[in-house]
Amino acid sequence: MIATSMGKQLRMRRVFRRGKALVLPLDHPIYFGPQPGNENPADLLALAREHGATAVLLTAGALRTALAEVGDLGIIMRVDTTITEIGGPDTVMHLLHTAEEAAALGADMVVVNCYIGIGDIAVESALLEKMADVSAECEQIGMPFCGEIIPRVSYKDPARTMPASADLAMAIRLGLEYGCDLVKTVYNGDPEGYAKAVAAGRLPVIMAGGPKSSDELAIFRQVHEALANGACGVAVGRRVWGSSKPESTLKALHALVFEGASADEAIATYIQGRT
Amino acid sequence: MIATSMGKQLRMRRVFRRGKALVLPLDHPIYFGPQPGNENPADLLALAREHGATAVLLTAGALRTALAEVGDLGIIMRVDTTITEIGGPDTVMHLLHTAEEAAALGADMVVVNCYIGIGDIAVESALLEKMADVSAECEQIGMPFCGEIIPRVSYKDPARTMPASADLAMAIRLGLEYGCDLVKTVYNGDPEGYAKAVAAGRLPVIMAGGPKSSDELAIFRQVHEALANGACGVAVGRRVWGSSKPESTLKALHALVFEGASADEAIATYIQGRT
Amino acid sequence: MIATSMGKQLRMRRVFRRGKALVLPLDHPIYFGPQPGNENPADLLALAREHGATAVLLTAGALRTALAEVGDLGIIMRVDTTITEIGGPDTVMHLLHTAEEAAALGADMVVVNCYIGIGDIAVESALLEKMADVSAECEQIGMPFCGEIIPRVSYKDPARTMPASADLAMAIRLGLEYGCDLVKTVYNGDPEGYAKAVAAGRLPVIMAGGPKSSDELAIFRQVHEALANGACGVAVGRRVWGSSKPESTLKALHALVFEGASADEAIATYIQGRT
Amino acid sequence: MIATSMGKQLRMRRVFRRGKALVLPLDHPIYFGPQPGNENPADLLALAREHGATAVLLTAGALRTALAEVGDLGIIMRVDTTITEIGGPDTVMHLLHTAEEAAALGADMVVVNCYIGIGDIAVESALLEKMADVSAECEQIGMPFCGEIIPRVSYKDPARTMPASADLAMAIRLGLEYGCDLVKTVYNGDPEGYAKAVAAGRLPVIMAGGPKSSDELAIFRQVHEALANGACGVAVGRRVWGSSKPESTLKALHALVFEGASADEAIATYIQGRT
Amino acid sequence: MIATSMGKQLRMRRVFRRGKALVLPLDHPIYFGPQPGNENPADLLALAREHGATAVLLTAGALRTALAEVGDLGIIMRVDTTITEIGGPDTVMHLLHTAEEAAALGADMVVVNCYIGIGDIAVESALLEKMADVSAECEQIGMPFCGEIIPRVSYKDPARTMPASADLAMAIRLGLEYGCDLVKTVYNGDPEGYAKAVAAGRLPVIMAGGPKSSDELAIFRQVHEALANGACGVAVGRRVWGSSKPESTLKALHALVFEGASADEAIATYIQGRT
Repeated sequence: MIATSMGKQLRMRRVFRRGKALVLPLDHPIYFGPQPGNENPADLLALAREHGATAVLLTAGALRTALAEVGDLGIIMRVDTTITEIGGPDTVMHLLHTAEEAAALGADMVVVNCYIGIGDIAVESALLEKMADVSAECEQIGMPFCGEIIPRVSYKDPARTMPASADLAMAIRLGLEYGCDLVKTVYNGDPEGYAKAVAAGRLPVIMAGGPKSSDELAIFRQVHEALANGACGVAVGRRVWGSSKPESTLKALHALVFEGASADEAIATYIQGRT
Repeated sequence: MIATSMGKQLRMRRVFRRGKALVLPLDHPIYFGPQPGNENPADLLALAREHGATAVLLTAGALRTALAEVGDLGIIMRVDTTITEIGGPDTVMHLLHTAEEAAALGADMVVVNCYIGIGDIAVESALLEKMADVSAECEQIGMPFCGEIIPRVSYKDPARTMPASADLAMAIRLGLEYGCDLVKTVYNGDPEGYAKAVAAGRLPVIMAGGPKSSDELAIFRQVHEALANGACGVAVGRRVWGSSKPESTLKALHALVFEGASADEAIATYIQGRT
Repeated sequence: MIATSMGKQLRMRRVFRRGKALVLPLDHPIYFGPQPGNENPADLLALAREHGATAVLLTAGALRTALAEVGDLGIIMRVDTTITEIGGPDTVMHLLHTAEEAAALGADMVVVNCYIGIGDIAVESALLEKMADVSAECEQIGMPFCGEIIPRVSYKDPARTMPASADLAMAIRLGLEYGCDLVKTVYNGDPEGYAKAVAAGRLPVIMAGGPKSSDELAIFRQVHEALANGACGVAVGRRVWGSSKPESTLKALHALVFEGASADEAIATYIQGRT
Repeated sequence: MIATSMGKQLRMRRVFRRGKALVLPLDHPIYFGPQPGNENPADLLALAREHGATAVLLTAGALRTALAEVGDLGIIMRVDTTITEIGGPDTVMHLLHTAEEAAALGADMVVVNCYIGIGDIAVESALLEKMADVSAECEQIGMPFCGEIIPRVSYKDPARTMPASADLAMAIRLGLEYGCDLVKTVYNGDPEGYAKAVAAGRLPVIMAGGPKSSDELAIFRQVHEALANGACGVAVGRRVWGSSKPESTLKALHALVFEGASADEAIATYIQGRT
Repeated sequence: MIATSMGKQLRMRRVFRRGKALVLPLDHPIYFGPQPGNENPADLLALAREHGATAVLLTAGALRTALAEVGDLGIIMRVDTTITEIGGPDTVMHLLHTAEEAAALGADMVVVNCYIGIGDIAVESALLEKMADVSAECEQIGMPFCGEIIPRVSYKDPARTMPASADLAMAIRLGLEYGCDLVKTVYNGDPEGYAKAVAAGRLPVIMAGGPKSSDELAIFRQVHEALANGACGVAVGRRVWGSSKPESTLKALHALVFEGASADEAIATYIQGRT
């Protein structure tokens, strides 16, 4: 942890447990609208709280419907958004709150999204400037700042479905350079390259879970690999609340993050679970 | 009601009665100019006050001509506007007032318009950013905030005259994520889909009345369906003051919102009324 | 009503009904601590709401324990206070909130206390300056402002137990000059002099109820005289919630303020009431 | 006129007519409470407007009860006050409004009181600092600023009932040094000394009328002398509205200020008048 | 819990566990200098963390030496202080930080001290004004606010060593009126009176431990009585870290607060403990 102020350090502990984080994001409706499984934020907070998550990632608006279920969960507040899926791509963004407003609303950490390599200079510059602005504000008020920095290489070249490790190294290191305390980004399936990217970033990195896939078990192998190669946690949303067995998925992720489970052990936990 | 502060909670009560709202909007001249029936705001406030409306929706400018008639009506102040009908489309918008100014002018609630799915990324992003900015300001000053969030799907595809229920779910849920305390949006004639959209929004929703139609009685059936499927009120303007019998229309709407009338009973109330 | 702005005019209607006000104050614990009858603010709001009061007068702190009972009551928020009874006299005062903070907390009107003729120039000047400061702030934000202006002539001369009508004229007119929209002050038992004082003040005046007396019926005669001589309402606290029959007291006051009852009729209402 | 900005020059026109001013002050209740003749600000504005006054001097609070009668009268807004007569002396002062607030409330000119030579260093310093502060603010916002600067020599030495001309020279010149655009001060009955004082002040000076005296006609001789020796106008309140014949008094003052009447001609006007 | 905003509600949970609080204060050196047992803040945080405390109460300065030991403890940051013991009494106070600074430094709650009934009007007024100012700031930034409100009746009358229950009722209710979310005050040994005082305060109350006494076991009986009569927690400093067996003391307090232990059971826990 390299947080530069006492306030940042003290708030960071609300998101991590023993240096690890298991985050349930539920901010997807700002782009996709409500989806099966994420209709009720309170249900998702109860799920997260009861099955070992350390934090949730959501908007202040969703949070206020779920206060009764928040328990000890850390609050990673999303302070930016984009136009919706029916409006266009998710790269043109704006702020919902300043970091100061997020603090007043009870955030333990603030997160913004930043896509790189998207092939539109003006849009990409605006995304980076947003990240810089919020980072500077967070520094002043002792608020931990997470950059969700995603190389969206497929935007420029649809043939590329996954960022190269060099792209991830760029993303993670950008977090360091921009004053982030944490970077959330994808795992690309290249263990060695990913390990180098994380090492060169010199920041805590949590793996973004990504969209559902046809292989329900893939997430456990990916998470295991990411953790084994430097990630200090995961943020899995759609593949938890969108799963046919959300509780079992979360328990299996908990086993990976906190209990040193192998991918097979996690999969066994998932399969044995009933819900 | 999920208002996050004491000020919001206390002001919300000025717009609702027993959890229901019957709103008369008269803000149409900012786009259409004066129309038959809405020339005199004071007349419309008197109409609303005497026939059971809980609130009016208008600009501060119109309000100041009508103070003597305001009675106990809640004031939903529209703080944004667009270019006029003789200037172009109603999607390019700007603010008339900050929320703080609206508070000083006596507003009980602030409303802005936001169109989604219109097919112009820059315009849509500006609309959403406006909604986010006013919402954050309202949070700070304890002012209830209503998002009038309308899927304008016909702008992109003129063949689509009515938003799908998924579009409404998006609109309503967006209200929650942006910190709205209330969403005003259209009813699309799909009772089951509408009910799901309202439920997943987790916010009070009031049905927007929309333009006049050739069938003067249709509004009563639509309102009944919306209320039966989750709406907690209606905001009907053009089909009240533009009606041949404004008083009877308002009485019939009151019967629907507050007296549990069926659509047929409301229609009977309307038909029997003389004005 | 001479409120200088639209916001003031619109908020004034939350405190008055047909130009009359029946206010239940419950701010006494800031000086006296909790007293029999005022322990639970929520109980007092329920009492006020159910028996015809138009508004309550209390601190924001007390209000937040009583939100569920507020109903349609106007909120007159006390924004100043003094040291407590165990600390010394109630004339050395300071602010609890700015008017802007009170607005964000949901106030419909703001009140401060101001004692005149107390015989300590520095203290009296500070009281008047406080009133001027809050008044100016209220003017900017459209918040109605009530000055509780009391000639404390007994402080200088203990032999004088009641202010002369000239003192009341001073107090009420001071309210006008300082930009108050309403003055709350005592009734001194001199009908003719009081009538002149109210007339020369040119502001709405509400009668302050004062401490309990051995004669439980005296309040009804006093209120009747004050109303007959220009007061537009009353604010009675200790003699309502400190009464052996709070509900009956409030009903009798309602008869005086809103039903044109004579003092004897009010007393009959009080005596016939059971609680 | 030496006003340093266009805004000051343009607003000065509202107080003067052909370089002369006839002002009716009615701010006395802030110290004395309502007095016979000044109970109703609207009546005094009607009086002033109909009988040749160029301006009225009053608080914003009093003004708002009299808007319907204001006509073309210039508004000199008093923005400071003191404790009341029942509280103590009138030298411990505080502000009612900033100059900026006065501008928002419609003032054409702002006035504050400043007593000099009173024998209390702390109080006198505070009075001068107040005048400096308001003057600087008026400069920034283009608001004409009148200093009512009175040598209160009797406070230190009760044997002295009237300031010496050197004291008046001090007072008037202080106005210049403090950035006043106008000084209102007393006439001391020493024509030659007064003329020198006015000349050395190099500012427009208007004569303050002072309290009623047993000789109802004295005011006309005093005003004539003051005007003949450099005053450009008068501000007479108590000796107008406190007179048995307010209209005639005002007409006689008008003859002195605007028609070049002699003292005897003014007295004749007064005597012939019926009211 | 009656916190008026989402930020307050969310931060409150960091200090309480299942509605109860066991706080270790270590702010004593700001008045007494270092004392045996409180030399090393880090040691005290480790002690608190390992033996069941929910929060610590200290200055930001002390906190920064102890970050490595903070664990999950809630941070109640003291933002005011007084002159030192070698300088004079502890009643003349000033702020160390604004609430906003405390937030940036990582506080979960802010506390200030306020003594009432001390017999010095100016000092007592300044203490109350400080409490009002910090409370208003906390309201704006969503920061829970604890008033340590102590009736210091012995200051005025040395014969009185303990406040009466009416004094405690005053203190606790003052907390409510001033917008505190929590009051820390002493237990006075009158179970019935204390219960009434807490009930009339309508706020969470935690018992202040007070100075060491010759009877090491008395604290357990006092805490048991306070908890049995309405307190929701305790803040014991000197009698923990100043004890010969700090760990055992804390364990015994934990048994009282969280395990429903009787006073005798707590004493047994203390006696059996080795450190």
